[in-house]
Amino acid sequence: MTLENLLTNKSFGGWHKQYRHPSQSLNCDMRFAIFLPPQASEKSPVPVLYWLSGLTCTDENFMQKAGAHRIAAELGIAIVAPDTSPRGDDVPDDADRSYDFGLGAGFYLNATQSPWNTHYHMYDYVVSELPALIEKTFPVTKQRFISGHSMGGHGALTIGLKNPDLYSSITAFSPICNPTQTPWGQKAFQHYLGDNRESWKDYDACELLKKDKASQAILIDQGLSDDFLEKELKPERLAAAAQENSTNLTLRQHEGYDHSYYFIASFIEDHLCFHNKHRG
Amino acid sequence: MTLENLLTNKSFGGWHKQYRHPSQSLNCDMRFAIFLPPQASEKSPVPVLYWLSGLTCTDENFMQKAGAHRIAAELGIAIVAPDTSPRGDDVPDDADRSYDFGLGAGFYLNATQSPWNTHYHMYDYVVSELPALIEKTFPVTKQRFISGHSMGGHGALTIGLKNPDLYSSITAFSPICNPTQTPWGQKAFQHYLGDNRESWKDYDACELLKKDKASQAILIDQGLSDDFLEKELKPERLAAAAQENSTNLTLRQHEGYDHSYYFIASFIEDHLCFHNKHRG
Repeated sequence: MTLENLLTNKSFGGWHKQYRHPSQSLNCDMRFAIFLPPQASEKSPVPVLYWLSGLTCTDENFMQKAGAHRIAAELGIAIVAPDTSPRGDDVPDDADRSYDFGLGAGFYLNATQSPWNTHYHMYDYVVSELPALIEKTFPVTKQRFISGHSMGGHGALTIGLKNPDLYSSITAFSPICNPTQTPWGQKAFQHYLGDNRESWKDYDACELLKKDKASQAILIDQGLSDDFLEKELKPERLAAAAQENSTNLTLRQHEGYDHSYYFIASFIEDHLCFHNKHRG
Repeated sequence: MTLENLLTNKSFGGWHKQYRHPSQSLNCDMRFAIFLPPQASEKSPVPVLYWLSGLTCTDENFMQKAGAHRIAAELGIAIVAPDTSPRGDDVPDDADRSYDFGLGAGFYLNATQSPWNTHYHMYDYVVSELPALIEKTFPVTKQRFISGHSMGGHGALTIGLKNPDLYSSITAFSPICNPTQTPWGQKAFQHYLGDNRESWKDYDACELLKKDKASQAILIDQGLSDDFLEKELKPERLAAAAQENSTNLTLRQHEGYDHSYYFIASFIEDHLCFHNKHRG
């Protein structure tokens, strides 16, 4: 396994690094970024927050715009940001090159339909392949937290809920909570997973929470001036499912905030502190 | 005078806003961004930090990447980020479209040479036209601080030094300190200002400081792993000139940090606090 270091920047006494590596799950080269806080060393490994980004993003958006390094450096938490889909000339894209499906829109699932099932296995990549590589390579513990934004909030919720033994706590900003019932999700699931709508439920946070109470604590922040709130996100449905089975879910709604990274930056400190409370 | 609001985002309880307006100094439409902290109101106007960006940047880079809103919101300081050059189809660019001259590289001076002198008057825009517009439009006081990065550090230093009554304090990240003697500066000054090298000195922080002791306090941060340090920046020459005439200049040098926004984000809090100490 080759791991190519593309970029290294000192940041808040720690290090931001960008890497490229061949991915077996995705059958292509992938890029990811890691922030290593100053505390991280072989003698004192640190837990890892996996951050899953939204539609059109790469590993770069969160690292550059969220302002998360400051508090991660203070708390001693590493952050890993994968890309949002497989990449490369061989990877099929939406015929219309739309932003909400295909490249940049992997939806953190394992596609079952041709031609998507050759590359689009972001679920396996995020849950298994990438953490194995991270834990082998960097001074980190096996403790994982998970968070994300929009499509990545959907990824954080579904991956966290399905793997309670792997993720200590879950947070999300403006997540797609009920994708089987909303346009972005339906378009993507139709292509990646096909006609059997029962199979879609395995990647829907509302459906997963209706089936089983979450064993982890969950924090969700949602801006009330978010243009996508009403049509695509549906956090109130997730909060209702959580209340139904006494899942420990906090949904905070913020007047005036939109879907942008300015919203994420405004509250990322709370998310890192929330995860830090659940550190082993 | 029309002022078109292009973007509004709530951020840390305040507001990030992007505007377009016709500029008389620059003879074209210009875009700028402003962060208004939650404290700013007609009854309690706040001082303004003018942030000047580096080569290739626009009004967006600092607002998105510096993580400055958090501390500006805490201290009650507005931030204004202009673009780095005149813009538009009519504005002449470098024939080679290089990154270090022409569009995105106005060097915060008033060009005297054709064809540049029709539009390239960033000095007048930043010192006079933009602040007049800001002070007329937003709930701010007439107190100004100035800061910037690289070419914008050069802008902050030269504009601040030449206008001690207008700017209470000056800071810079990785500034071009002696552009009459270094390649980026020489290339730009040759085109914008012509052959008379005496006229260049009016836009060189080292030359200005040799001529007159600064009346304001100055803080400069410089990364020691900055690829441009040796060839283009020369902060040690500015520190020597300051020592010579007892100017209150602090040059901090940081092991491992480079020329990127990760460096700026790591220390921007110190700069805002430095300016805040000089608030009236």
